[in-house]
Amino acid sequence: MTTLQNDLFLRACRREKTERTPVWIMRQAGRYLPQYRAIREKADFITMYKTPELAAEVTIQPVDIIGVDAAILFSDILVIPDAMGMHLEMHEGKGPIFPHPIRTKADSDALTKIDPWKDLKYVLDAVALTKKELNNRVPLIGFSGSPWTLLTYMVEGKGSKNFAIIKKLIYTNPALAHEVLEKLSAAVADYLPAKIETGVDAVQIFDTWGGILSPHDYEEFSLPYITKIISTVKRTIEPIIFFAKGVHYDLTKLAASGADVLGLDWTCDISTARTVLEGKTALQGNMDPTILYAPKKRIKEEVIRILSSYGRGSGHIFNLGHGILPDMDPENAKAMINFVKEESPRFK
Amino acid sequence: MTTLQNDLFLRACRREKTERTPVWIMRQAGRYLPQYRAIREKADFITMYKTPELAAEVTIQPVDIIGVDAAILFSDILVIPDAMGMHLEMHEGKGPIFPHPIRTKADSDALTKIDPWKDLKYVLDAVALTKKELNNRVPLIGFSGSPWTLLTYMVEGKGSKNFAIIKKLIYTNPALAHEVLEKLSAAVADYLPAKIETGVDAVQIFDTWGGILSPHDYEEFSLPYITKIISTVKRTIEPIIFFAKGVHYDLTKLAASGADVLGLDWTCDISTARTVLEGKTALQGNMDPTILYAPKKRIKEEVIRILSSYGRGSGHIFNLGHGILPDMDPENAKAMINFVKEESPRFK
Repeated sequence: MTTLQNDLFLRACRREKTERTPVWIMRQAGRYLPQYRAIREKADFITMYKTPELAAEVTIQPVDIIGVDAAILFSDILVIPDAMGMHLEMHEGKGPIFPHPIRTKADSDALTKIDPWKDLKYVLDAVALTKKELNNRVPLIGFSGSPWTLLTYMVEGKGSKNFAIIKKLIYTNPALAHEVLEKLSAAVADYLPAKIETGVDAVQIFDTWGGILSPHDYEEFSLPYITKIISTVKRTIEPIIFFAKGVHYDLTKLAASGADVLGLDWTCDISTARTVLEGKTALQGNMDPTILYAPKKRIKEEVIRILSSYGRGSGHIFNLGHGILPDMDPENAKAMINFVKEESPRFK
Repeated sequence: MTTLQNDLFLRACRREKTERTPVWIMRQAGRYLPQYRAIREKADFITMYKTPELAAEVTIQPVDIIGVDAAILFSDILVIPDAMGMHLEMHEGKGPIFPHPIRTKADSDALTKIDPWKDLKYVLDAVALTKKELNNRVPLIGFSGSPWTLLTYMVEGKGSKNFAIIKKLIYTNPALAHEVLEKLSAAVADYLPAKIETGVDAVQIFDTWGGILSPHDYEEFSLPYITKIISTVKRTIEPIIFFAKGVHYDLTKLAASGADVLGLDWTCDISTARTVLEGKTALQGNMDPTILYAPKKRIKEEVIRILSSYGRGSGHIFNLGHGILPDMDPENAKAMINFVKEESPRFK
């Protein structure tokens, strides 16, 4: 069934042997690329991801320009709460804003149950168009925020430093938090399979705000919902990547979610992670995104250090430990990709 | 020599038997207390810590008001770069600012070598006055930023989201970074013993920005400097607490710094930490600071959960995993302190 010209990424997700380590970059379809900024000048962020032609175009840019081994659909994790009726706004320089954040039971009651085939049709249209235009060159990754990460945005309403509002909610009204988390889990568990059915070859669940929780709270408010979603999505063969930023307390518990791949941020050691996990999952990561500010010689040293730290064998997808920064030189991103391609075969 | 009425904190730092778990709170002398805000209305932040009478007064407030087992001198980690000639400014709502951040060799050359007995005399005067006014009721903790954390502030010049400037510096001009880190280490290694000689009973090193580094970079740019400082300071008997926020990759490496106590943030499990460390250090922490938003019943549950997670025996100092938030109800802080006092004896 797979007719992909380059399926290294998918094989690595499944811990199958590959001739070299595949590589892609979180936020690779983004502002660091002048070709992205050229489109962004003509359309705002929301218009870009709601217009399949524009979404497909920027999704494919990094495949052509920097040579990544997988494309990731240009979209936003907040499409789900937006579709549930929360009306997402993007304010230049301030990030996403929900003008009416979730604070009460009435706010939760007002959320609508979504049908991704109807309410998020523009995402699925973007998937279909991107797949067509990619023409089987590399796999396409779809993604979703975790219920906890979505809830955090929905309750805070905008960027936060201390996350005081969401924390107050879980400690004073945990029942309301769980009610919304259930709704979000149901939505994500419908959304990801719809993306897979439309054509994405793998999915990544981003738990961007998992790291603000204590281990005890993580096991109450985030991990069980992700585990539930994965158990639903896993009825298909497409690999699932689970990236919990800043969640370091126990990788074996994250692996027990059923994910095929764990994404690692740059503040942990990939060698230790591999040892601890004993082959339970593949690993994706985990170069410090700011290393791309360094001269190419230093970038090369770091690529080799991470490849060597992971060590020989299968199951590694090279990536940054977080999204690429908007002021990064695309030449350095491309250099990193090429170093992975050149240096990784000797670790296989 | 110790004539302290309450030396629970010091005995716990040394892993000696205590009848209950001692407790204090990071940022306990702070804005959440109306008595602090009353003084803050009359003097700005810098005037407060530069005036021994005011510093002593707010340092002692939480001992009287919420009943902590240790006082921590009201001061700021940035007094050192300020004394080295960087001229710290505090902008309301924006935090600390260095108008001329370190960017070049010339900026480093302009830093002056400090003599804490002269250049930071106001801190030592505050220590002496506080000790006198505390009248041996509880121990007094002094503190410093780690060289890495100080460098981060000195290079960024103000608050940062991505820490792009400091990261660019370490990757493009590591020699300059190490040069300034050496100067800062020398300054801290003079400063902490001066504080001890003047009367503080323990010191805490805050590595607030350690968590932005990869494990590999942490071992190059932060840990060796802290280890060096500790080896100098340790010629005295006063315990040293090392709190590296967001540094989770290897607690045994942090313990090898020679610190008597490791401070833990709330995103790790104190039970696991104790097991991993095999008694090499005492542990301080690690309740999620936002739990204090919860009703008292929930705070009590969490206190018991952490006491029980640490388990029976000595070597635990209860604290939050990060500073108390400014909008917290002091009654809840006090309730937490009392729950620790009431519930901890059965874990001894």
